[in-house]
Amino acid sequence: MGGVQMESGVSKARQGNFFEDFWLGQIIEHATPRTVTAGDVSLYTALYGSRFAVQSSDAFARAIGYPQSPIDDLLVFHIVFGKTVPDISLNAIANLGYADCRFLKPVFPGDTLSATSEVIGLRENSNKQSGVVYVRTTGVDQDGAPVLDYVRWVMVRKRDEAAATHAAHVPQLKEVVEPAALGAALPNLDSRAYYAALSGSSYRWGDYEVGEKIDHLDGMTIEEAEHQLATRLYQNTAKVHFNQHQQVQGRFGRRLIYT
Amino acid sequence: MGGVQMESGVSKARQGNFFEDFWLGQIIEHATPRTVTAGDVSLYTALYGSRFAVQSSDAFARAIGYPQSPIDDLLVFHIVFGKTVPDISLNAIANLGYADCRFLKPVFPGDTLSATSEVIGLRENSNKQSGVVYVRTTGVDQDGAPVLDYVRWVMVRKRDEAAATHAAHVPQLKEVVEPAALGAALPNLDSRAYYAALSGSSYRWGDYEVGEKIDHLDGMTIEEAEHQLATRLYQNTAKVHFNQHQQVQGRFGRRLIYT
Amino acid sequence: MGGVQMESGVSKARQGNFFEDFWLGQIIEHATPRTVTAGDVSLYTALYGSRFAVQSSDAFARAIGYPQSPIDDLLVFHIVFGKTVPDISLNAIANLGYADCRFLKPVFPGDTLSATSEVIGLRENSNKQSGVVYVRTTGVDQDGAPVLDYVRWVMVRKRDEAAATHAAHVPQLKEVVEPAALGAALPNLDSRAYYAALSGSSYRWGDYEVGEKIDHLDGMTIEEAEHQLATRLYQNTAKVHFNQHQQVQGRFGRRLIYT
Repeated sequence: MGGVQMESGVSKARQGNFFEDFWLGQIIEHATPRTVTAGDVSLYTALYGSRFAVQSSDAFARAIGYPQSPIDDLLVFHIVFGKTVPDISLNAIANLGYADCRFLKPVFPGDTLSATSEVIGLRENSNKQSGVVYVRTTGVDQDGAPVLDYVRWVMVRKRDEAAATHAAHVPQLKEVVEPAALGAALPNLDSRAYYAALSGSSYRWGDYEVGEKIDHLDGMTIEEAEHQLATRLYQNTAKVHFNQHQQVQGRFGRRLIYT
Repeated sequence: MGGVQMESGVSKARQGNFFEDFWLGQIIEHATPRTVTAGDVSLYTALYGSRFAVQSSDAFARAIGYPQSPIDDLLVFHIVFGKTVPDISLNAIANLGYADCRFLKPVFPGDTLSATSEVIGLRENSNKQSGVVYVRTTGVDQDGAPVLDYVRWVMVRKRDEAAATHAAHVPQLKEVVEPAALGAALPNLDSRAYYAALSGSSYRWGDYEVGEKIDHLDGMTIEEAEHQLATRLYQNTAKVHFNQHQQVQGRFGRRLIYT
Repeated sequence: MGGVQMESGVSKARQGNFFEDFWLGQIIEHATPRTVTAGDVSLYTALYGSRFAVQSSDAFARAIGYPQSPIDDLLVFHIVFGKTVPDISLNAIANLGYADCRFLKPVFPGDTLSATSEVIGLRENSNKQSGVVYVRTTGVDQDGAPVLDYVRWVMVRKRDEAAATHAAHVPQLKEVVEPAALGAALPNLDSRAYYAALSGSSYRWGDYEVGEKIDHLDGMTIEEAEHQLATRLYQNTAKVHFNQHQQVQGRFGRRLIYT
């Protein structure tokens, strides 16, 4: 567990890891396991307005083979991701990318999620002020079963420009996630029981083509209160999302929305 | 299920039904069944500040004969109503009225609601640009038991002014909902166990008179984030509530609050 | 139950108690019992971003001896406090202080909280326009077991400056809550099972010193929607938090944040 620094005046406050604090092969066990509940699902619906029948209705989910509605994959992602922030990206300049993201097991209300990351790549920037950290993060449930696995790379500030850092190592990342690597842990779904009228769309996998454009028409104007509620729900502590008085002096002049 | 249009550039995006798409006697099964949970109740409380003892306390509800706190009737209404929006009122100009609204069965956390509407009236406006659609909407639980029934009429745009429409039919609507038609499915409540001090008011049915005025004193200033959270919680997709950049060019110059 | 006034024009609206309505030894049973749920916990997390492992994870809580995650003490406080507002402080000018606050029993989702206050002190201000009311408030669960007990004093307006009030009585309040008076009802916790890496901090009781300063670094800009959601979640009816159009004419020119 990184990020606890002792310095005069800030004492026990967490300052997070800087680029030179990471090393290749480092395993970080992230804090704050979280039991996901129906309350989280309601807030997620109120924040995003999602309307997937499987995630919205226990009855619909049971009809096709789930024991009840699973938690929306992206809510699982945000909760697992949030745990990594205090250790990985409290001093981040920018999120650069994600790869090989796979949801490995459905999550249900009452499951407890926790997360671990392994540092799989490091590359200092030529200006010596920052570097790119590559981590593979795994979210597990209360039984230790993986529910989510993904690679993320992020640019992180150095605490001290003069600090020595390790030799650069940029990992090979998959260009494509193979279908065989996805959803192995899904229940055996009965697609005949998937009732299109209740789902809100008659389109199926075979109806979409590579390169097809869909104009979703609707837009939503996001309020500060909304993105702050979401970010705190995920227990994501990144400062850029919360303090207008500080951000007004920053690069963008305002709070960034976590998405 | 109406509202899916195929057009160049917007392809699979739902555009909703226009006035000429409805016909008398049409039955529309609405999408997105929804399991109502304690999370929805908490958000509803946080959005409205409601303080009805029966809906707030399982212990209070049990004392008078409920198995637990029922879901607030208006939350049931909003969830059922929300399902009708993509099919009935995505192209609405204005909601005009409601009639014969009856809550037929208590709803509890864990129940799944879905909705069906029947078109019971149609009347084109003389300007040929829009018309009034009358629907009777029924919300049912996972067993198909009706929990809510109401009539709504709404002015809906035509897609094409030249489109022919059906002969006008304006339904006969009840002026009054008879007490005998209300609450038949309520549990047998023990009014002696209704503890006035905990309810917050000593007034009972017999204490109110027709024409009596009550000044509720308190007011609340509603924020954009609040009405958007509510509207999304109900999975209501009406565009007028969400997109400030679009609404600024509209009739009111701002987002409308769904109430 | 105080606060219901009959006056022309406002009829049945609750106006709350004024200073002259209180008497020493008065017991007030507050309205609106409330079943606390996982939904309340999610909203509390989304509003505050709290990251206490015991309250966040059922698995973590069980490992150290709880049956499941308890409700955050401060959420219990806010809910109990909210019930007292319509009777005690609807006409308050200012909250002055709290003393002897003790959390006496863990609260879990599904428990129902209600509250009673005893007036333990009264002192009219020399301007005859207001006075200070001291109450001891006790929150109990559905079995009547106390979960929270605290003293609060608050300055409350008089309805009528000429009204006679009782002799002043200022209660003796404890300067310090003795450790022996705290947490008697806590489960027998197994501190060896408290896993520091998941808790997010390696610091324990013995690591803190009286007078130590901790700069928490992070700040959050609070939006109107956020404090209003919190205050309504607690069913707190104090007008100063909600009506911008009224508050703009008041002492501060804006809504006050309930904290």
